[in-house]
Amino acid sequence: MRLSQIIEKVLDEVLPSEGTRPEVLSKAMRYAVGTGGKRVRPRICLAAAEAVGGTAEDARYPAAAIEILHNYTLVHDDLPAMDNDVERRGKPTVWKEFGEANAILAGDALLALAYRTAALAPRNVPQIVQELGEQGLGVVRGQVEDIEQGDKDIEFVYIHKTADLFIAAAVMGALAAGASPEDVAKLREFALNLGLAFQYEDDLLDGDSPYGMEKTQSLAQEATAKAISSLDGLSGDTTELRLLAQSLLGRKK
Amino acid sequence: MRLSQIIEKVLDEVLPSEGTRPEVLSKAMRYAVGTGGKRVRPRICLAAAEAVGGTAEDARYPAAAIEILHNYTLVHDDLPAMDNDVERRGKPTVWKEFGEANAILAGDALLALAYRTAALAPRNVPQIVQELGEQGLGVVRGQVEDIEQGDKDIEFVYIHKTADLFIAAAVMGALAAGASPEDVAKLREFALNLGLAFQYEDDLLDGDSPYGMEKTQSLAQEATAKAISSLDGLSGDTTELRLLAQSLLGRKK
Repeated sequence: MRLSQIIEKVLDEVLPSEGTRPEVLSKAMRYAVGTGGKRVRPRICLAAAEAVGGTAEDARYPAAAIEILHNYTLVHDDLPAMDNDVERRGKPTVWKEFGEANAILAGDALLALAYRTAALAPRNVPQIVQELGEQGLGVVRGQVEDIEQGDKDIEFVYIHKTADLFIAAAVMGALAAGASPEDVAKLREFALNLGLAFQYEDDLLDGDSPYGMEKTQSLAQEATAKAISSLDGLSGDTTELRLLAQSLLGRKK
Repeated sequence: MRLSQIIEKVLDEVLPSEGTRPEVLSKAMRYAVGTGGKRVRPRICLAAAEAVGGTAEDARYPAAAIEILHNYTLVHDDLPAMDNDVERRGKPTVWKEFGEANAILAGDALLALAYRTAALAPRNVPQIVQELGEQGLGVVRGQVEDIEQGDKDIEFVYIHKTADLFIAAAVMGALAAGASPEDVAKLREFALNLGLAFQYEDDLLDGDSPYGMEKTQSLAQEATAKAISSLDGLSGDTTELRLLAQSLLGRKK
């Protein structure tokens, strides 16, 4: 697939080669980001650039940045002090493979690399980095709320823990292609709803939702429809974003 | 002091207010950054802007960014899986006060905030963020090398774990004030040597150095002299940078 090729190529370009010192860090960073996979967030980023009349190539660095940032969140979420997960995508988690200290540090390194990479965008770098910082902070806020003891605000968790990185992906892609403020606003709305739909679908796949299965099913459909309708009136080619939104609905793990 | 006031004011401006949800995160972030203290790195950043003919105000956001980034490294270094420290600056460390998961996440949030803040600089944002990303990655590389079992390269650790953030501070401050490439290069050299001098002095204060006390004393003096001589020919007022370099030599904890 065209977009997938761009994504794997730019990730390979910006990640440290395995020989870069200290080697354990470079290996852990590459292990964390992996190869292939769905790459949902970077696909949104590239497709958002096309949806505002730019090219996918305009958004290649922000796309790599959002995927790298997403993977740091997984590395830290899996830690013993957090979810204590030993396996992800059928392989040992980063801390299980490289040790706990190296996993904390590999996550930190991925975070630094994400911002350095976003700053390579061809235009609008101040707004792009501010957006990544804002939503990168948001995802942590969602995670802290999620692990809070006692009553937690599920909507707050879903918006921040899941949708914020979808928003950063779409907005950065649009900005990298020189979008108008109106187009950026439409894509922000699209990504918020697509992120929520993604989370509802995740709950359906897990067979566990705070809203119950039937209600979650209709929430997912509503959010997807709302996302797709936000694309009306965009100045570029929205084909990829529409396909992406439809493919996430009723997806398999 | 003039520079200190700018630093405390901008830190207060960009850190989340204590009521920002989730409150435990906002509290932990403010607790980690603290108030007062030496603020060596942001002072270098502001003084670098003056040294290239700009004003300290030009560099206020990069100065806040480097101090916030420095403090995330301390929060993560103190974790049980890393140095397992329970006290810092006479107070419980962040993980001891807020729990391990919240400390990992507060560090992550500070990192996101650092980049968002650097992107508020008045000019040269792409280069500023790339520099912060490069040295932010460097500090992690130094830390991984430092905790490696077996032979480690002390010079590599000192350059990356300590000097890299000094370099980011000086270079970002210069760029924020619109420095010429020649002035940026001089300040990079200044900061590398000042960072090394700072680390040697730290070893002297701890009474423990891989080079032995006498040798470390002379290394500190040489590095400080080299740093100060790098300031010759800069186009602005280097008074603050010279004072800063001299005050670090033979300093007390």
